[in-house]
Amino acid sequence: MPDRNTVDNSPVAAPGQHDVSKAQQAVEERLIETVLQSFDGCQDPRLKQVMQALVRHLHAFVREVRLTEGEWNKAIEFLTEVGHITDDRRQEFILLSDVLGASMQTINVNNEACGDATEATVFGPFFVDDAPRIEQGGDLSGGAAGQPCWVEGTVRDTEGKPVPNARIEVWEADEDGFYDVQYTDNRVSGRAHLFSDEQGEFRFWGLTPTPYPIPHDGPVGRMLEATGRSPMRASHLHFMVSAPQLRTLVTHIFVRGDELLESDTVFGVKDSLIKDFVQQPAGTATPDGRELDDRTWARARFDIVLAPA
Amino acid sequence: MPDRNTVDNSPVAAPGQHDVSKAQQAVEERLIETVLQSFDGCQDPRLKQVMQALVRHLHAFVREVRLTEGEWNKAIEFLTEVGHITDDRRQEFILLSDVLGASMQTINVNNEACGDATEATVFGPFFVDDAPRIEQGGDLSGGAAGQPCWVEGTVRDTEGKPVPNARIEVWEADEDGFYDVQYTDNRVSGRAHLFSDEQGEFRFWGLTPTPYPIPHDGPVGRMLEATGRSPMRASHLHFMVSAPQLRTLVTHIFVRGDELLESDTVFGVKDSLIKDFVQQPAGTATPDGRELDDRTWARARFDIVLAPA
Repeated sequence: MPDRNTVDNSPVAAPGQHDVSKAQQAVEERLIETVLQSFDGCQDPRLKQVMQALVRHLHAFVREVRLTEGEWNKAIEFLTEVGHITDDRRQEFILLSDVLGASMQTINVNNEACGDATEATVFGPFFVDDAPRIEQGGDLSGGAAGQPCWVEGTVRDTEGKPVPNARIEVWEADEDGFYDVQYTDNRVSGRAHLFSDEQGEFRFWGLTPTPYPIPHDGPVGRMLEATGRSPMRASHLHFMVSAPQLRTLVTHIFVRGDELLESDTVFGVKDSLIKDFVQQPAGTATPDGRELDDRTWARARFDIVLAPA
Repeated sequence: MPDRNTVDNSPVAAPGQHDVSKAQQAVEERLIETVLQSFDGCQDPRLKQVMQALVRHLHAFVREVRLTEGEWNKAIEFLTEVGHITDDRRQEFILLSDVLGASMQTINVNNEACGDATEATVFGPFFVDDAPRIEQGGDLSGGAAGQPCWVEGTVRDTEGKPVPNARIEVWEADEDGFYDVQYTDNRVSGRAHLFSDEQGEFRFWGLTPTPYPIPHDGPVGRMLEATGRSPMRASHLHFMVSAPQLRTLVTHIFVRGDELLESDTVFGVKDSLIKDFVQQPAGTATPDGRELDDRTWARARFDIVLAPA
């Protein structure tokens, strides 16, 4: 290293930092103090807390990896691309948060285990607010291609009491791995909402979930490729379940036996959410007498427990 | 807190984390491990190091502040806006990095003190590659409004030897606080490059720097307003100085006495970069005999020391 004219340049051990003099550490720490102080006048205490924590962690990252100016430039370019590809139909920042596990960690932080309440998982970018309503036993596929799948279960609270009239939103990809909003023809398919009955029970026809890649033709996909990661998500069916005085549950159910359960690219899998999707040979009688002719189908059970609000 | 059916739910003290059970901490830490492992197959060791460190610090932030889902949503919306306002003429991600001190910290990390080498500071978003060349004593203002300012100095290495033929890029805002590229008429003004002479000396006419706000009509400006921060930058003149075998220096000089020196919104000020800009009454003879009639002018000296590459 070149000579210094600083008072103290003995290296100090720090995680990931080698050969950084105390004088240099002081420069870096002084900057952090100055940045933190710039938020001292913030009148919103929560905003101040969040911004100051963001500054501390962001600077700790830059210092630990000794981020180069070239890398900083690449990061700026990457974020710019993520912004530019994002539009009404595609949200690349959510994808980025998802593949870094930040979405799942936020879910964890806000959905601490509560009795035997059903675990939450990532929301994903494909929910739509005004999905059609179906009746009990109705079909949400809306013409989307895939194997028919009968799903039934009960909504209860953590005391075991049935929750009638819970609003159950369900959405999923078709067998080609696309949600309706990923097509450009404004179709509405693979999504619906229904309400639990007086006994808290629900039942509907959907499609047996199949694995699919997250959109990977953009900067997030390139990042996954550069780091040797797969863009594939384990097969899943999305649920959002809400009822008065209970915590809204955003979750999926996954298909037991899916090879991707261990490597879901958004880290959404939890053991308790893996369900048996039992394959039914063609000709097997359906629960509601629906005629499926020579088609196979599947059935799954998902009993839901909602935590108190 | 509601009952739990977890094995161990005794609260553990952690920075900023109150009342988080050990079981919950285990859930959060297990997720981090899973995300880190997803990068194990990355073939580029530096990329792997950077991504894994990013994951650790990002998750530490989410956990420390117990980020809510609403806040996460706001963050996604904010980043989307930063992306959408960014174009060829405006780089809001650089502004964001600047006002969080991340740009300055990156500069610090890459420009460790080296003898009496001149300190570096932020690059900013307004440099342009092909600024016109001026001769010694030339004027870089290009018609931009402002008080004429004579700037002179010497470029040396850390052994005190003059550096002839160093390339000196200089750029600055006009007295209204705008760089040429912020106008839509394709003007080129307030920027030029020149070369040090055989004695390492240089001299040119520019404009006395004046304070200005960073562009604050976008999401970064709104963040500054929400947190009670000013968008103002201390008055400064940008330099980028390069010569073979020497470390390229990106820096500013600041105006002693400027009230904003203590609150520069991008944290670029360093004591060693504050210079006397000596005001000259109208009629004072100029160093090169230039006639300024009844105008006042200023003069400043900036002696530059370049570190070894």
